[in-house]
Amino acid sequence: MSKALVGIIMGSDSDLPVMSAAAQMCEEFGVEYEVSVVSAHRTPDRLVEYSKNAEKRGLRVIIAGAGGAAHLPGMVAALTALPVIGVPVRGSNLEGMDSLLSIVQMPGGVPVATVAINGAKNAGILATQILGVKDSSLRKKILAYKNSMKEEVETKVKKLDKLEYKKYLKQMAK
Amino acid sequence: MSKALVGIIMGSDSDLPVMSAAAQMCEEFGVEYEVSVVSAHRTPDRLVEYSKNAEKRGLRVIIAGAGGAAHLPGMVAALTALPVIGVPVRGSNLEGMDSLLSIVQMPGGVPVATVAINGAKNAGILATQILGVKDSSLRKKILAYKNSMKEEVETKVKKLDKLEYKKYLKQMAK
Amino acid sequence: MSKALVGIIMGSDSDLPVMSAAAQMCEEFGVEYEVSVVSAHRTPDRLVEYSKNAEKRGLRVIIAGAGGAAHLPGMVAALTALPVIGVPVRGSNLEGMDSLLSIVQMPGGVPVATVAINGAKNAGILATQILGVKDSSLRKKILAYKNSMKEEVETKVKKLDKLEYKKYLKQMAK
Amino acid sequence: MSKALVGIIMGSDSDLPVMSAAAQMCEEFGVEYEVSVVSAHRTPDRLVEYSKNAEKRGLRVIIAGAGGAAHLPGMVAALTALPVIGVPVRGSNLEGMDSLLSIVQMPGGVPVATVAINGAKNAGILATQILGVKDSSLRKKILAYKNSMKEEVETKVKKLDKLEYKKYLKQMAK
Amino acid sequence: MSKALVGIIMGSDSDLPVMSAAAQMCEEFGVEYEVSVVSAHRTPDRLVEYSKNAEKRGLRVIIAGAGGAAHLPGMVAALTALPVIGVPVRGSNLEGMDSLLSIVQMPGGVPVATVAINGAKNAGILATQILGVKDSSLRKKILAYKNSMKEEVETKVKKLDKLEYKKYLKQMAK
Amino acid sequence: MSKALVGIIMGSDSDLPVMSAAAQMCEEFGVEYEVSVVSAHRTPDRLVEYSKNAEKRGLRVIIAGAGGAAHLPGMVAALTALPVIGVPVRGSNLEGMDSLLSIVQMPGGVPVATVAINGAKNAGILATQILGVKDSSLRKKILAYKNSMKEEVETKVKKLDKLEYKKYLKQMAK
Amino acid sequence: MSKALVGIIMGSDSDLPVMSAAAQMCEEFGVEYEVSVVSAHRTPDRLVEYSKNAEKRGLRVIIAGAGGAAHLPGMVAALTALPVIGVPVRGSNLEGMDSLLSIVQMPGGVPVATVAINGAKNAGILATQILGVKDSSLRKKILAYKNSMKEEVETKVKKLDKLEYKKYLKQMAK
Amino acid sequence: MSKALVGIIMGSDSDLPVMSAAAQMCEEFGVEYEVSVVSAHRTPDRLVEYSKNAEKRGLRVIIAGAGGAAHLPGMVAALTALPVIGVPVRGSNLEGMDSLLSIVQMPGGVPVATVAINGAKNAGILATQILGVKDSSLRKKILAYKNSMKEEVETKVKKLDKLEYKKYLKQMAK
Repeated sequence: MSKALVGIIMGSDSDLPVMSAAAQMCEEFGVEYEVSVVSAHRTPDRLVEYSKNAEKRGLRVIIAGAGGAAHLPGMVAALTALPVIGVPVRGSNLEGMDSLLSIVQMPGGVPVATVAINGAKNAGILATQILGVKDSSLRKKILAYKNSMKEEVETKVKKLDKLEYKKYLKQMAK
Repeated sequence: MSKALVGIIMGSDSDLPVMSAAAQMCEEFGVEYEVSVVSAHRTPDRLVEYSKNAEKRGLRVIIAGAGGAAHLPGMVAALTALPVIGVPVRGSNLEGMDSLLSIVQMPGGVPVATVAINGAKNAGILATQILGVKDSSLRKKILAYKNSMKEEVETKVKKLDKLEYKKYLKQMAK
Repeated sequence: MSKALVGIIMGSDSDLPVMSAAAQMCEEFGVEYEVSVVSAHRTPDRLVEYSKNAEKRGLRVIIAGAGGAAHLPGMVAALTALPVIGVPVRGSNLEGMDSLLSIVQMPGGVPVATVAINGAKNAGILATQILGVKDSSLRKKILAYKNSMKEEVETKVKKLDKLEYKKYLKQMAK
Repeated sequence: MSKALVGIIMGSDSDLPVMSAAAQMCEEFGVEYEVSVVSAHRTPDRLVEYSKNAEKRGLRVIIAGAGGAAHLPGMVAALTALPVIGVPVRGSNLEGMDSLLSIVQMPGGVPVATVAINGAKNAGILATQILGVKDSSLRKKILAYKNSMKEEVETKVKKLDKLEYKKYLKQMAK
Repeated sequence: MSKALVGIIMGSDSDLPVMSAAAQMCEEFGVEYEVSVVSAHRTPDRLVEYSKNAEKRGLRVIIAGAGGAAHLPGMVAALTALPVIGVPVRGSNLEGMDSLLSIVQMPGGVPVATVAINGAKNAGILATQILGVKDSSLRKKILAYKNSMKEEVETKVKKLDKLEYKKYLKQMAK
Repeated sequence: MSKALVGIIMGSDSDLPVMSAAAQMCEEFGVEYEVSVVSAHRTPDRLVEYSKNAEKRGLRVIIAGAGGAAHLPGMVAALTALPVIGVPVRGSNLEGMDSLLSIVQMPGGVPVATVAINGAKNAGILATQILGVKDSSLRKKILAYKNSMKEEVETKVKKLDKLEYKKYLKQMAK
Repeated sequence: MSKALVGIIMGSDSDLPVMSAAAQMCEEFGVEYEVSVVSAHRTPDRLVEYSKNAEKRGLRVIIAGAGGAAHLPGMVAALTALPVIGVPVRGSNLEGMDSLLSIVQMPGGVPVATVAINGAKNAGILATQILGVKDSSLRKKILAYKNSMKEEVETKVKKLDKLEYKKYLKQMAK
Repeated sequence: MSKALVGIIMGSDSDLPVMSAAAQMCEEFGVEYEVSVVSAHRTPDRLVEYSKNAEKRGLRVIIAGAGGAAHLPGMVAALTALPVIGVPVRGSNLEGMDSLLSIVQMPGGVPVATVAINGAKNAGILATQILGVKDSSLRKKILAYKNSMKEEVETKVKKLDKLEYKKYLKQMAK
């Protein structure tokens, strides 16, 4: 049995530059994960096998990213009882609207937890939050992460107060 | 082996009032067909089985209709060498745009021949045209059908010439 | 401490006819839930209080539904470490597109698990799947539910085979 | 108490290159302003504090810019009696449509005065117009500004008359 | 000189059922207003005259509603130094998207404070907030209004707690 | 009185690179034209004057281009009996959809003859066709122009036949 | 040779309830017209013949209405030197956006003068304005029509002044 | 009679870089094809001639690509009994949405088998699938092609397993 709790899959390796952010967040939170390519349209048998075996292999959440007519997240969701997070990957046309609607507009009975277009980072955080349901240490890590985001903003607030916006802009431009 | 050459499937029996127009066109052209429900999300195993067996069962074209995050046509196309015609069925939101994009924006390698939103009638005609590739009598029937549409318009043209538009409108309103 | 594991909230009681489907699914799966109204714009203090106390009150998942410029799900997500499921409720204009984009397009750091427009039923299922991460009996119930959906389709398949589509349509119309 | 009458806030310092145009217009009209970062999702407590204290700190108008699921303007509006101007900042997808709808489609009871996508310049002018309600000198400055825009156009009209369009285009290209 | 501080105008009397909500809010807050029809396309001279005289007639805010290619708010804004609030009125096609974009996407130099599609109620509140810049009693009324909205929600929260959602739904349906 | 029959105006000189194509077509067809800047929002008085005097100055068609909340074409149309051709100029967001809807969705009574986004070339051709109503020599020139387009395509057809598509592509890339 | 100067055609007689408004405006202005059905897709030969003969039959403007993938206006424009006015007729899905884009987004060389979705009334007015290029009496009629629209608005303005908006609304509701 | 079974046409030679992918797929599958330019708007007579003669010249499928108001595929479909595959070519605005809707939203009676925006590769595959209706060797080639896609993915899966995602990303970036 795999140690991974989160399976991160994508329809094509060309999605990896976007989807890698999900893996990075899992690492940041110390959540075991695995990364692979599962194409709904080119490897449908692998899709079935991966999805049906996910639970018994020890996975507890699946993150699936795809673009265009993005069927991967919904089809995985059809084939497993695990929660599935869908990441609409922006393709070369339509600004990602096709990916978003193909993933989010699932029929009653088979949900996909959809995040923003190219929102793989948030998929990793959401997977951690989901695992946090059974693990209060993860909930604490999420709170700590929220706190670090807050502090990062507050640091910028102070810097902006001090420099005033024109100098701040100049420093940004460097 | 089934006699049917055209398999007409849909994600839900609630799509039948739309999808039945495809069957009616097959009947009109004397093309053997079958009608069934195959849900990508609720019966994924049936989806795989139906698609993989379609060719050997004798089917030569598959018409698949679905709404919302409409994955049926694309998943069937992933699983068969036969041409697949996709019918975007309008759901209760977004005017069918979600269905359309989920069906038409397939990635390179796995086409779905998409028709208009709720365009099941045209799916039936297109299936006949595709079968016409090997059957000149079907091509003749399509030409005859085109001719009958032309004559129907011409009859209306004459009636409109004769009545003038105000009386014509009144007769339409009856 | 509340027994509820799932908090179902909405921006207005006018969202209840849509959002009640989430509660019904929780009931179906035997998951304890609570239902309330929390308006981001009219009761912002309540929003803060509800969100900050949710975890210590025993909630493990929050389902938040809202329409138009739908800020409730994202603001709750900003204020809790728990996973938040967002339900875009269709308003009187724009077919729900405004609700969907306001909920799903969250910035990096603060995910909302978005379901389809008016997809409250799926929000209830997704909440159950999330709780299933720590409760294999819930995963079994989800599998059983999937099986019941499959059987429901298969019953219709048989009925459609038997009646043929024209009679089936007539029976539907009754 | 701050001297500032206009508070210009944004969800992230990455919005500053767009939002600085609001500050520039305040300067042009001699209106006291302050610039800061307030993130609805990363610093929700700061959001509450900033908004609740704005009036007593002497602010009379708040300009809030944000992108994607842009909740900042609406949440500030929920927490203050002051007029709030929302600037939809274009994100990396959807051409700013998500930001626009998230800001403008506020429910009855809590308005946000929305300007164009990336329209921070107009937000600064609108804030000045709003302050002009109690300050006829500001109204005169707005009229003078309008006059200067008119003269700028008229200068171009004359230049275009004189050069004819082909030479004018060549000079533009330089 | 008119006593009115707020001029509520619309492109056609067919917009009155929507736009009357602005007048109702002015009444609720005790703000003097006037209501009239000014068509940018059918009465352009009246548009110019109304806009140019608005300030000297005593108006301090103008609310302008229009549908389709909605030019009224922007043209009024071109012709007065007063703040102009635009209300996109939904026409018979495109769900109000045409009205919204025609009003909100103003070029740099001439802002229109845009509210939601059919958001005339919020236009009335925003006008009051703007006048509140010079009148602390109006700011207090806005706060009181916010409080009343909060209490209305809280009453519903209690009722929902007491009845539970199924009975609540039944009472709503009556 | 000006000799120009076609007035080509635009909201800003930044539209000139797009709008100059209209002038080029007028030149090609030997139609007298004039080019100027008329801003609906920055020079509203000039808008009124230009539009009201256009007919008596001898103009017979007006081409008006503008972007974003593009009010120029519709306002000119409100102020003259001449046919007005609107050119939606693409702005920096929304791909020109805002410009298009602001121009084409005019209310009953005041048409604008809208061409494609950035379609200034076609505006020049359309103006010539309109003048052709009273000038058969212009109709002949349009036919000749159509013929030249046809011949241009036919030349490419022959070249493509001869080279085959791979070589043709290589020559295009040079 | 026909006496008609304006040819009003449509893709289907089901478009007649919309398109008849064009004929009514021609009648109002005393412009000779003819009404017929020409289907680009069902009667393509008739399309060619109608378009090629239009000029020599005496037509000077063609108004063409169609819905969905609306090819009629553009194809007529390809086949005649006369100005062609396109009316996007709203179909049963997509709110007329498909019709609009199919008509307005013509390539360089072949313009279609597009009016609003279902804007047949404006097509009739625009045709009259185009004929007004050679007929000052028509320009006067257009001015008179504009004046009557103005007076109609002014009558309503007075009525609204007198009744105040609440009574006016009540009278509208009757 | 031409040996070609598939006619690949496009509205302009500027579409060739997109449309050549259809030819490449025909070559890959050993299907005879021809490539040409047929402009619906600039060479309407050629459109009629090409379409009417296609069947008797031996063609069995037509692939037609066009952008903007893309009328070519639908008009060809009106003029032949052969199945027509439409390729929406993305133009310079609207992300290809105009091309897509102009092609897919055909009225009842005249289908166009539409593929994704710029999806010429899939058009070539679909044409092969259609010819496969009468040629089991083509069906086998399609299955082999599907298999090769599967193997390509599986190779990547293994490489990704071996390298882990960070190294894989680095190799991609080279």
